[in-house]
Amino acid sequence: MNEIPTIPDWQISQWFNTSTPLTQAGMRGRVVLLHAFQMLCPSCVSHSVPQAERVHREFAESGVSVIGLHTVFEHHAAMTPVGLEAFLHEYHITHPVGVDQMTPGEPVPVTMRKYKLRGTPSLMLLDRAGHLRMHEFGRVDDLHLGVAIGRLLMEEKPMPDELQRQSVRDGRTTNCDEQGCEVS
Amino acid sequence: MNEIPTIPDWQISQWFNTSTPLTQAGMRGRVVLLHAFQMLCPSCVSHSVPQAERVHREFAESGVSVIGLHTVFEHHAAMTPVGLEAFLHEYHITHPVGVDQMTPGEPVPVTMRKYKLRGTPSLMLLDRAGHLRMHEFGRVDDLHLGVAIGRLLMEEKPMPDELQRQSVRDGRTTNCDEQGCEVS
Amino acid sequence: MNEIPTIPDWQISQWFNTSTPLTQAGMRGRVVLLHAFQMLCPSCVSHSVPQAERVHREFAESGVSVIGLHTVFEHHAAMTPVGLEAFLHEYHITHPVGVDQMTPGEPVPVTMRKYKLRGTPSLMLLDRAGHLRMHEFGRVDDLHLGVAIGRLLMEEKPMPDELQRQSVRDGRTTNCDEQGCEVS
Amino acid sequence: MNEIPTIPDWQISQWFNTSTPLTQAGMRGRVVLLHAFQMLCPSCVSHSVPQAERVHREFAESGVSVIGLHTVFEHHAAMTPVGLEAFLHEYHITHPVGVDQMTPGEPVPVTMRKYKLRGTPSLMLLDRAGHLRMHEFGRVDDLHLGVAIGRLLMEEKPMPDELQRQSVRDGRTTNCDEQGCEVS
Repeated sequence: MNEIPTIPDWQISQWFNTSTPLTQAGMRGRVVLLHAFQMLCPSCVSHSVPQAERVHREFAESGVSVIGLHTVFEHHAAMTPVGLEAFLHEYHITHPVGVDQMTPGEPVPVTMRKYKLRGTPSLMLLDRAGHLRMHEFGRVDDLHLGVAIGRLLMEEKPMPDELQRQSVRDGRTTNCDEQGCEVS
Repeated sequence: MNEIPTIPDWQISQWFNTSTPLTQAGMRGRVVLLHAFQMLCPSCVSHSVPQAERVHREFAESGVSVIGLHTVFEHHAAMTPVGLEAFLHEYHITHPVGVDQMTPGEPVPVTMRKYKLRGTPSLMLLDRAGHLRMHEFGRVDDLHLGVAIGRLLMEEKPMPDELQRQSVRDGRTTNCDEQGCEVS
Repeated sequence: MNEIPTIPDWQISQWFNTSTPLTQAGMRGRVVLLHAFQMLCPSCVSHSVPQAERVHREFAESGVSVIGLHTVFEHHAAMTPVGLEAFLHEYHITHPVGVDQMTPGEPVPVTMRKYKLRGTPSLMLLDRAGHLRMHEFGRVDDLHLGVAIGRLLMEEKPMPDELQRQSVRDGRTTNCDEQGCEVS
Repeated sequence: MNEIPTIPDWQISQWFNTSTPLTQAGMRGRVVLLHAFQMLCPSCVSHSVPQAERVHREFAESGVSVIGLHTVFEHHAAMTPVGLEAFLHEYHITHPVGVDQMTPGEPVPVTMRKYKLRGTPSLMLLDRAGHLRMHEFGRVDDLHLGVAIGRLLMEEKPMPDELQRQSVRDGRTTNCDEQGCEVS
């Protein structure tokens, strides 16, 4: 029997662009694009954050909720909530963004560890029932992301027998490269 | 009662990249991306033709058939079938392309007139039942095209009550611009 | 009589990517590309900072010195020297960068005020004699920048009768846009 | 003793965008950007032809003359003068373009053979005295092209002792690739 993968709820110390904290349960019935990023990760800044913002602006009314997760695992003194707030302002980011909860003495934040993210950017798609249906590290091109979102939007009920597509790209050894920034 | 829009079959004088002529009936059960272009239309060359080729290469196995329609309505002496063949070779285009049938004394070819195309590039999506579900003039971005394809791939049967999305962009008066080339 | 414009020396509170403080006098005999930026200015991050880095990497040996000036005039708590250091690391910036000196109670830093910069990005070219020969606000395309650098590299002596090209682009009212971030 | 490289005059069967035939002698005193292309060479269409057009539009008044050379060495039936004329019209090319003279029974045209061009795109820079100062096969980036042009614009007299920079990029075996189209 194939179990449908799910992810535990995110743990957020501070929210931006939303007046109330968001939960997975509150998203039920909608397709959720969850993207993990760092404000100083070049590939996030040039590709994944603006891509997520476009999905938010163009498909929120069609049933897609976009949530950013600021998963700082390096340069903590540089990527503070104050820094993030300025970043979101300057880049005109309007979709909700939560700061992943830190644990004292642990460089990788809580949600990032629970989700076993490889680094930033990471992109996850949850279906209307809250099941994890796509999980990618690195850049995802618009065409593939669009097809995946289009498919999920057509589902009225979760598809229990569909397997999770957990495609993780070839790793690189440097900290940040064209693909993104990896936890070492 | 809403009628579902259909389009008559294309009329082709010569095919490339296929050993047998293609018909709409032969596509039943598949999602069809039909794109009209001219080999000397800058926006087609830089955007719509390579986009169509990517859809062909990446989603043919998922049930999408991509067909190019060479709808020459200007510079006929420059955009001949011999020219088209060289173009397809040099640009590494592998999806089937048909030359829209000309009528003596009429600059706009037959299929282009029957489909009332505004110019090139034009993009049409047909669902698995052969109904016209999207019709756009000018550049369509990858994200929107992907979502539209993803939705259609999830349909087992045509949706008779769904309206055609016939979104035509704002017109320009010049012959060829950033958006494409228009019939004047 | 035309006077040749000069600029006073920069005032820097902290240097990165250089073991010794840099001065204009120390640059005599070389062409200097001086670019003012902020680490959260989108147009700087996507265009002017990587452009300056390319000039540094490809033309340092030909006689061009590239110096970045971190002129923070907004979001001071977000764009700290610690933040800048992480930014330079993640974006692989190897050319010298100085933090423009702040004055208590004044949001615009010292050098930025002395140079009467309109905002970020700003680009200045100094000739081998230290005269200001180009001063632009906003994006400068590679072709124009290259021609300007090529011309200055050919000068053995300053050209006293050549007028300063002080071309400032049309202003925008928003804080940060495609062009850059302006002091309001 | 270093001889300064020169090139013989181009041999043109038909000119576009000029009312009188152009000769090297007629260019004396100006910097000349000579670029060889084919209208169905993807790298020419996307990069080198629009780059040459920008140089023409932005630096003609500064003393740069841009000349295109249509050097068809393959698909001759597809890249006719009629085809070229439509191409120049659709792509809004306004700088002079000459069709390289063909010899019966020889696929590579006359000027292309005399200049020993490796393929398309090829870019040559002639100084004000008519000496060949740069010769590149494949894409040349704007920054390097700009610096080279800027340097030549500053020369009042040719520099007899300066060596020709004949940098030819690494070869590829396919006919047309990202870099350009090569004579096989």
